[in-house]
This record gives sequence, structure tokens and C-alpha cells, in this order.
Amino acid sequence: MGLRDRVDAFFIELQDDLCRRLEEIDGRERFAEDRWKRPSGGGGITRVIHDGAIFEKGGVNLSSLNGELSPRIAERLDVQPQPFFAAGVSLVLHPDSPLVPTAHMNVRYIELARAAKAWFGGGADLTPYYLFTEDAAHFHRCMKQACEDSPAGDYPRFKKWCDDYFRLPHREESRGVGGIFFDYLSDDLEAGFDLVQRLGRAFDEAYLPIVERRAALPWTPRQKQWQSIRRGRYVEFNLIHDRGTLFGLETGGRTESILISLPPQARWVYDHRPEPGSPEAELIEILRSPVDWLDP
Amino acid sequence: MGLRDRVDAFFIELQDDLCRRLEEIDGRERFAEDRWKRPSGGGGITRVIHDGAIFEKGGVNLSSLNGELSPRIAERLDVQPQPFFAAGVSLVLHPDSPLVPTAHMNVRYIELARAAKAWFGGGADLTPYYLFTEDAAHFHRCMKQACEDSPAGDYPRFKKWCDDYFRLPHREESRGVGGIFFDYLSDDLEAGFDLVQRLGRAFDEAYLPIVERRAALPWTPRQKQWQSIRRGRYVEFNLIHDRGTLFGLETGGRTESILISLPPQARWVYDHRPEPGSPEAELIEILRSPVDWLDP
Repeated sequence: MGLRDRVDAFFIELQDDLCRRLEEIDGRERFAEDRWKRPSGGGGITRVIHDGAIFEKGGVNLSSLNGELSPRIAERLDVQPQPFFAAGVSLVLHPDSPLVPTAHMNVRYIELARAAKAWFGGGADLTPYYLFTEDAAHFHRCMKQACEDSPAGDYPRFKKWCDDYFRLPHREESRGVGGIFFDYLSDDLEAGFDLVQRLGRAFDEAYLPIVERRAALPWTPRQKQWQSIRRGRYVEFNLIHDRGTLFGLETGGRTESILISLPPQARWVYDHRPEPGSPEAELIEILRSPVDWLDP
Repeated sequence: MGLRDRVDAFFIELQDDLCRRLEEIDGRERFAEDRWKRPSGGGGITRVIHDGAIFEKGGVNLSSLNGELSPRIAERLDVQPQPFFAAGVSLVLHPDSPLVPTAHMNVRYIELARAAKAWFGGGADLTPYYLFTEDAAHFHRCMKQACEDSPAGDYPRFKKWCDDYFRLPHREESRGVGGIFFDYLSDDLEAGFDLVQRLGRAFDEAYLPIVERRAALPWTPRQKQWQSIRRGRYVEFNLIHDRGTLFGLETGGRTESILISLPPQARWVYDHRPEPGSPEAELIEILRSPVDWLDP
């Protein structure tokens, strides 16, 4: 089986496994599924969960596209129009409880036929509304482990890449406590595939114990309100900066599958400033400059 | 008095007059004010109203900036770094009732010293959540009148410019029912200033009678929910497409003043489709392709 088929097979399995585990943890709601075809080649499976016991909104997207690069995409990628293949799994989970962090994970593989270019990319990051230092450390420990177990892994580099990428310059804040991010891993495709598999598999252990630890804690409407304001920042990042989102929308991707990453609701309050010394103020302080969670 | 000072004086007066009229109409809340200075020259007055009887959130910004174009802004404007002057009034109103449309209006004047370039720009547009055809027609009639009263006015051209500008390609929808939009009016600056003054003055008559007509109507939580979903589209437009927003954020403008345009809250529901034949479905149908409201 060629690499392309093995990648496709892994992504299909990964989506299934992730959705099954998330449904188990949620315990109330199940993912609804939309299967869609791209007129010019390939398609995807979008799975979405709404109003669960744990997850207010969550999406796990699978896509596997092929065909001819449109002139516009080719220009963006700085190559000639040519046949391409692009597959990926992308996940964003917005929990109901403001004490459970939002999580994002994405793995992808791209091939350009004529340029004989192919690469893997991916990443996972955590966006808490209230900071539990041990959760951030746990998430990073799992990401570091996945990197160390793989020949293509480089935690210090990918951790910094993530901090640089998930940054809102106009807020002078990071989106959350980071994780890892990498792209254009093309030197050794088998090593890249190994990393992407390890990352996909590590997500369960990296995120779900945090969900289980925090979901049972009681929270207040004031905390939910704070979550809404922070979700506004998530929207700002995804619509102003996220390359995947903007590239997908510009190039005529399936809008509903792309924007599944947006939170169920968000709030914008003019010049909102949390009370000095409050947990909300403390979170913002932490987001101002990246932290080494494994050696703080 | 030079043009720059006359423009400044008009914009100050316009902000005051608009806020006074909006407070009268709201009847409950008043605008809070933030005066800010730009370290490298000029400043502004941001006025915001929250949780009013009519306006759930509204902002009326005044700014008058001067100094040296940063290399980054100069590059974006495709000129050499040089002294500049930029002043404007910008207004966005998000009413509480889903039966009252959101409104936006902006007038601006820019001068580049060394290039001996100067121009006026502006526009106003209406974003209903439920369509009252006569409201859209009334708004456009007022915009058309403002254009016809001014030597720089050109309603058909500016109406189309607005339809082209306030478009969400990824939704295949317009942001609302449009209005007028124009930029780079540099041929005859006195004529441009005249148009900007007429537009600023026309807003009251264009929008407030609609507010008064619709604000007293009863509405349901279901309609409020629909407003939240449509507010999500407003967020999408402003963060993905609006040049003023993106340019302002990129060039280090005052974030809270720029993002005052975002709604108080918004909602994203995966693949939400209003019931065929419902008023919600009808609105979307209308937003698919621009309408000539004065000769439908």
C-alpha cells in the first residue's frame, strides 16, 4: 500500500477512534455525521457534537481531497497548477464548563505531484479559561513524549512554533497555553507519518484526563461569562490569523466544515478588564508571554 | 481655517450630535467615553453604550491621527514613508431587538503630505435580522438623497460599491441590505467634504425612524437566537474582510476602539438552515444577490 493510502487509512481510523472516545467521555450526546463530496475530487466526513454533557460544541473533520490545484491556490503555494492530494483530520472541542479547556488538534498530509513535493504537518494546543498549571504541564508532557518517541519529533522547536503561531498580536496574548505545531516535514516522509500518528494517538492521553478531572467541578455564571469573552478571542484568532481557516475559505472549501472550529457562542465586552489579582487576571498575565510548562 | 481643521471640527460635532440623538432615542443608557492619545501623534474619543433600552451595544468612534507613516503602513498604501493625517468618525449600533437592524456608518479623511494626496471616503449600511422591505427602501432613499444633494455623490456607483464590499464570499451572502460605500474621492476635496457632511447628517434620518418603528414590536427568544446566528456573520465579515478593521489591527491601532464594532454576543450553530418559507429563510434568499431597493 502506498503512503497516500496508508495515510488515508490512518486518518479514517483516527477520526473513528477519537469520536468514540469523546462520546464515551461525554456520556450523553453522540456525533452527527455529514459525508460530503468535493465536485472536483475527493470529499470528507464532518462529525459534530452539540449540547453534550461535557461538550457544548465539538467537531472532528476528516478530509481527503485530490484533483488539480486551482490557479489561485497554486499561486498561494508558489507552485505551478498541478495535481495535488491533501488529507487531514482536524478537531476542536468547546466544553460547556469554563473549567475545562478548549482543545484543538490537527494532522495533515499534502502531496504535489509535479513538484514531487510532499509533507506532513500537525499540532495540538490547549486553551484554558481558568488556569490549572498541572493541566498545562500534563498536556505538554504528553506532546513532548510523542515528539521524543518519533524520529521526526523536536519538542523544543515545535513548542516554540506553536507559541509563535497561536499568537494574537493585537491582544498581546497567546491563544492559550500552547502545545506543539509543525509543518513542511518533508525530509523523511516515513518519519513524518510516524510523528503524525503518534500525535494523533497522544491526544487522547493528553486531553481526556484533564476533561475528567475538571468536568465535575462546579462553576458559576460569572465564570461562564468569562469563558464567553475568551471564546471571543478564539474567534478573533481563527478568523484573523489561522492559516488553515483563511486558506480553506479563500479556496472554496466547505464553509460549515471549516467554521466548525468556532465556539457555540462568544461575547465582546468593550475594554473588559478582570479584577486585579483574580484568576481571570492571572490567566491573562500568563498568556502575555510563553511559559516553559515542563520547567517553569 | 484649512480643510484639515474644518474636517476635524465637523467630525467632533458629528460625534457629539450622533451620540446625543442616540441617547435620546435609547432613553435609558448614556454613552461612556474614553479619550485616548496615540503616542506618536493625535488621538481619539471612543464612546460606547451598553445594555440600553434599545441598543444592546453601540460604539461611536472619533479619531484624528497624525505623524509619520510607519514603513509597514507606507508599504500597504504603496507610498514612501512620509507625514500623514487621518481623521474619521465610525459608528456601529447593535440593537437589542432582533427586529431592529444593525447599522454602520463611517466617514474619513486622509492626507499624505509628501505625495500631495488627500481623499475622502465613507459609507453607511444596514443589516437587518428580519427584513422589512420598506425599511431597506427608506434607508436607501436617504442615501440616494444625500448623494444627489452633493456634487461628489453618485448613488448608483456607491450603492454597487457597497454591495461589492460588504459581501461574504464563503457564505454567498451580503452582510445586509447595503447602502452606500465610497473611497479615494480626491478630485475635488471640497465636493468630497460636502458629501461626507451630507452622509454624516443623513444617517439620523436614514436610521432612527426605522429604530422607532421597530423597537416597540414584541419579539421571541427564537428570533433573538436567529439574531445571534446572524451576528456571527457580522463577526465573520469584520474579522475576515473589513479593511478598516484589519488595517487598524495590523498597524497597531487601539484594539478596543477598533473591535467595538463586534456584536455583544454571537452564536455559531453547525450548518444552521432556517425552515423553508420562514422569514429567516426569506432574509437569506434576499442576501444572496443584491437588490435595487428603490426600484425592486
